[in-house]
Order: sequence, then C-alpha cells, then structure tokens
Amino acid sequence: MDHQQPLRNIADIGEFSLIEELTRTFRSEHTELIEDIGDDAAGIIQDNENVQVISTDLLVEGIHFDPMYMPLKHLGYKAVSVNVSDICAMNATAEYITVSIAVSSKYSVEALEELYAGIKAACDNFTVRLVGGDTTASPFGLTISITAFGNVKKEKLTTRSGAKNFDLLVVSGDLGGAYMGLQVLEREKEVFKSNPAIQPELDGFDYIIQRQLKPEARKDVVAILSALEVVPTSMIDISDGLASEILHICKSSSVGCHVYGEKIPMDTQTIQTALDFNLDPVTAALNGGEDYELLFTIDQKDIAKIQSNPNFTIIGHITDANDGIYHIDKQGAAVALKAQGWKHFS
Amino acid sequence: MDHQQPLRNIADIGEFSLIEELTRTFRSEHTELIEDIGDDAAGIIQDNENVQVISTDLLVEGIHFDPMYMPLKHLGYKAVSVNVSDICAMNATAEYITVSIAVSSKYSVEALEELYAGIKAACDNFTVRLVGGDTTASPFGLTISITAFGNVKKEKLTTRSGAKNFDLLVVSGDLGGAYMGLQVLEREKEVFKSNPAIQPELDGFDYIIQRQLKPEARKDVVAILSALEVVPTSMIDISDGLASEILHICKSSSVGCHVYGEKIPMDTQTIQTALDFNLDPVTAALNGGEDYELLFTIDQKDIAKIQSNPNFTIIGHITDANDGIYHIDKQGAAVALKAQGWKHFS
Repeated sequence: MDHQQPLRNIADIGEFSLIEELTRTFRSEHTELIEDIGDDAAGIIQDNENVQVISTDLLVEGIHFDPMYMPLKHLGYKAVSVNVSDICAMNATAEYITVSIAVSSKYSVEALEELYAGIKAACDNFTVRLVGGDTTASPFGLTISITAFGNVKKEKLTTRSGAKNFDLLVVSGDLGGAYMGLQVLEREKEVFKSNPAIQPELDGFDYIIQRQLKPEARKDVVAILSALEVVPTSMIDISDGLASEILHICKSSSVGCHVYGEKIPMDTQTIQTALDFNLDPVTAALNGGEDYELLFTIDQKDIAKIQSNPNFTIIGHITDANDGIYHIDKQGAAVALKAQGWKHFS
Repeated sequence: MDHQQPLRNIADIGEFSLIEELTRTFRSEHTELIEDIGDDAAGIIQDNENVQVISTDLLVEGIHFDPMYMPLKHLGYKAVSVNVSDICAMNATAEYITVSIAVSSKYSVEALEELYAGIKAACDNFTVRLVGGDTTASPFGLTISITAFGNVKKEKLTTRSGAKNFDLLVVSGDLGGAYMGLQVLEREKEVFKSNPAIQPELDGFDYIIQRQLKPEARKDVVAILSALEVVPTSMIDISDGLASEILHICKSSSVGCHVYGEKIPMDTQTIQTALDFNLDPVTAALNGGEDYELLFTIDQKDIAKIQSNPNFTIIGHITDANDGIYHIDKQGAAVALKAQGWKHFS
C-alpha cells in the first residue's frame, strides 16, 4: 500500500467497480469458465454436455433486511429464492445449496428455527437440497451466506452477453410490487415506532407485501422456456431494478436498447399504491428492485411463442450500441436510462 | 414458536448441536450425498467415477480474527487455506472457490486490495481458481464467506466415519504451533495497548507466528498419500484442536482411541514457547487449534508406507468403542480425552 496517496473510501467506488477492482489480478483465460468473477453466477464446464453454474450471496442485517419487519421465516425463504433466481437467470436448474450463518447472542434458538423453517420451505418449493454450511457467532446481528449450484445443458446456457441488434426485450411476471411493498412496510414501521399500540394497516396490500417478503424465483420460467423451445439470447434476474438490469445486459452485450414504459407489466395494487405514495408507477417498476422476475432477450424468430404466453411481456427491443439506451415514455419522448447504482454503502 | 417455554440461548447449545438442531428436518435418504449437513464438507456424486466435494466457512471480525494483529493479506490467505484444508480432509483436490465479503466503511479500498492479494497468493499456491462471489456493505466490521469445490475419485473419497478397530492414528506435520503463535501475538497486543511506543518482540517466534497467521492447507499430503497408494480409512483436518478432531472421528466412526501424548509431533519453538508461558506443550498440541494439519487413520497393512515418511507421525491407534477415548501420558496414565467445545458463543 502506498500511503502517500489518500486511502479511497469504499462508498466512492460502488459494488460493481469494487468487485472488478479487487479481482482484477485474478482474470485470465480459462476456457472452462463461462462467466467470470463479478457476474452473479459462474459457469464451470463439467463435461461435453453439461455446465455447472454457481451463485453466491451475502445477506446482512441492517443492510439487506431489518428483522423488525422481516419475519425470520420469510427471510430464510427469500435468501434461498434470491440464489435460486440467480441460477434461473442462466437458464439453469438449481439443485443444491449451502447455507452459512453468523449470528449474535440476541437471537434465540427458536428464532433460528424459524429462519431454517423458511429455508426448508424454499428448498421444498424449488426442489433444491441443502448440502452443507457453517454456523458461527457474530458480534453484531445476523449474516446469511448462501451458495447455490445448478446444471444446464451447454447449448441452453444463457448469460448477459448474448443480446444482439433487433432482439426483443422480454420480462416475466409483473414489476414494482416488491418496492411498493417495502414502502408500505416502512410506513407502518414508522407508525409503530411512534405508537406501538397502533396495529399495522396492511389490509389491501397483501400482494405487494408478499412480493417484498416472499419473492418467488422463477424456476417455472426456465421450464416454460424449455417447453416452448426458446433459448434466450441473454438473461438476467431483476434484483436491483429493471433499469439497472437492462444496463447490465446492454453493457455485457455491447448493444443499445429502447424500453417502453407503458409496456412494463404492473399489478393494479402496485399502481394504486404508487399513486397513493405520490410516486410514478413506471419509475417504481424501472428502479424498484427485488422483484426477482427474469429479464431476457429473444431472437425475432421466437416472437410468436413468447407473445402469446401469459407469463411474458415484450417491453422493448435491442438496438445498435451507438443508438444508446433509452426509456421511451407514453408521449414518445426518449430519456436516457440511468443506473440507480449501489446504494448500500452510501 | 411456543412462547410458553423460555427461549433457549444459542450459547447453551454449542456449534455442532446447533447445526444438528436447525437442519434436523432437512435430513433424508439421498444416495448422491456422501456426508450430510453438519460436516465440514459435503460430497455430491457427479458420475460413476468422480465425487464433487464442497466446503463452506464464515470468518467474522471479532470472532475469528482481530484486524489489530491479523494483517489483511494474511487473513485472505488463511481464509482460502482453511477451506482448501476442508477439501483435503476428504482426500480430494480443491479446484474452485467463491469469496464473498460484507465490509463496513471503516475499511479503505486499499485495505480490501491487501485482503484480495492474500486470497490471490493462496489461490496461486494451492492452484484453485476464484470463480465468483458477492461484495456488500456491513454495519460492523468484516465478514468473509468462502466456499471451496473439489474433486476426488469415488474410491479415494475419505470421510470421518471409516475408522475401525486396530487402525493407526496418524497426523501430518507438527502441532500446537498456531496456538502458541496466537499467545505471543496476544501478549504483544497487550503490550502495545499499554504503550504504543514499544516495538513488538516477535524475534525468535517466526515459525509459530507464521503457523498462526499463514497456515498452509496440506494439499501436498493428499498428493503424497496418492503416490504412496494409501487411502486413509478416515480423515479430518485439525482446525479446532487435535483432541476435538479425534473425538469427531471416534463419534462418526463409532470407535474408541488411544492417543499417546509423547508421540505428538511438535516443533522445538512450540515447546519452548509453551514452557515460557507456563503451559504444558502436550496440552497446547491437544487443545490448541488452527494448525490445519491432517489427522487420519490407516489400516495396519499400510504401516510401512506411512511410518517411513517424514511428513507423518503415528500417534495412537483405534480401539473398540467400549474401550473409550483416552490420552495416554508419559507415565502411562490414561486420561479420558475431552472436547474443548465451541468457545465462540461464550
């Protein structure tokens, strides 16, 4: 370390640049590796036909979850779902997970049993098997580390980098719900803080709260795509928000994109809640994260198979890189799409 | 949760029981799984010939390391080494790792670069490849999560549960050094705290400090055993201390054991430092952890191959379970071997 230079603050760098910076010296040509460090999942070729893919995530109390309004059972479920979602994003099938926890003494054994009940429910629901883990003490709160392993036939493996000009941009399910669910939960938390006697007002918000607390990895989408005989040209799961994920695909694939705000699928509860909070629903869908839907691109030849399927919505198309990356609003105005960046350090 | 019962404190349960308790509902018959949850590594059969083994560990600031006397480069090296060691303990060859970190803003980018320089050095030394990871913020200190993946031919896979009556108990390298290195570092830390002007007195302790700060996974031992055509009947790496690991093997294998204190290999620097600290060197070797040597059992037919090899020392033999588990001291007195248990929560 050269202490002549002032030390750099992590917050000034951002998550993606930080990973790139730290792992710069590790990069080299390895043919067995499909995606490299910094991606959500890594692919390791096992034999001539199959690819093993790996995804790993850390969930930290006070950063990724607040135990005050995140029941531990839901947290366990979500932790597994998030990692299975990363495996789905490579068009692969999740098979195994490891779960490690670091936990402070403020948690009782019963509380941890709740956490593991949620992990178990997710394992059962997504048909993945817990094969190992580590349990240790922590001086502060709870940290959960999950690694998921999946498999995919080599010719079906999908990364972020295969989108090409004229491909169509497709999303599964609907967006913005998890973000609006979080807004409702945070509002009720503030009410509770000021007066614990007041019961939380959650009636009518069940769908969006479910989207926030118990997100479902779209393992079914991988199966549907297989049944439709569609191999996406690129794919990513929507964890940080639609805008951010579109930018990831465009950067990795060296392409541009037009996304149409009015095409973005949203549940009526999401739209209504956004309006109640004086938020633009499209902005919530573009920038609110944690929906864990899949965003992918398809070749135009597959349009008929996708267009007619109720699980999917075509929301835009890929352009040449020189055309840029734009959100086209209702009035037809093009606004350059912006990344939300990584807010956790700020 | 039944709130009629008082909630149980994690500290009253201990690490191993906690894992067992939390993952009880996950247990079932799965033929593809060699070792199950709660072991350090899990084995997943990939095909008819090869087994993939997985190991995962969490390292938490304030629990597993103290940045005040653990340079970050060494910490990175050790984190990888510990996981490679778990893979070695299954007689397997480590190939890939994932590394995730949760880090508070008190760490500069340069500090994290030091950490990754250590991770890189270990990857190069142990010929393992970093294939992915996650980087996130933390409200408190640094947490490192590492998962390692290895491969082994099915017939060479070694677990904790294969030791049988009359087998010999063998250890690689020498023991107690890492523990005595820690004692020296802690003494110097106290001196530094009381007067930062005093330079640490580390001369003459280089070997044992190296053992504590930069432990080497015995990947070479796996290769030596292969060259000797010896497949251990059981194996474990010495992370928690020799006594604790012997008890693990005996419990998993349903056998007893006699271990001879005077046979335990120790470096002269370890012995001398123990005496200076008024500690019994054998106690330091039996109960001091973090040496990351390999402890294994062999069939008597392999005695000649092992006995003549300078990397190995025969320190005892396996007995019938009914005979119990004993440390035999210099005077020939048998003392029941005791687990140190898991101190991190207390």
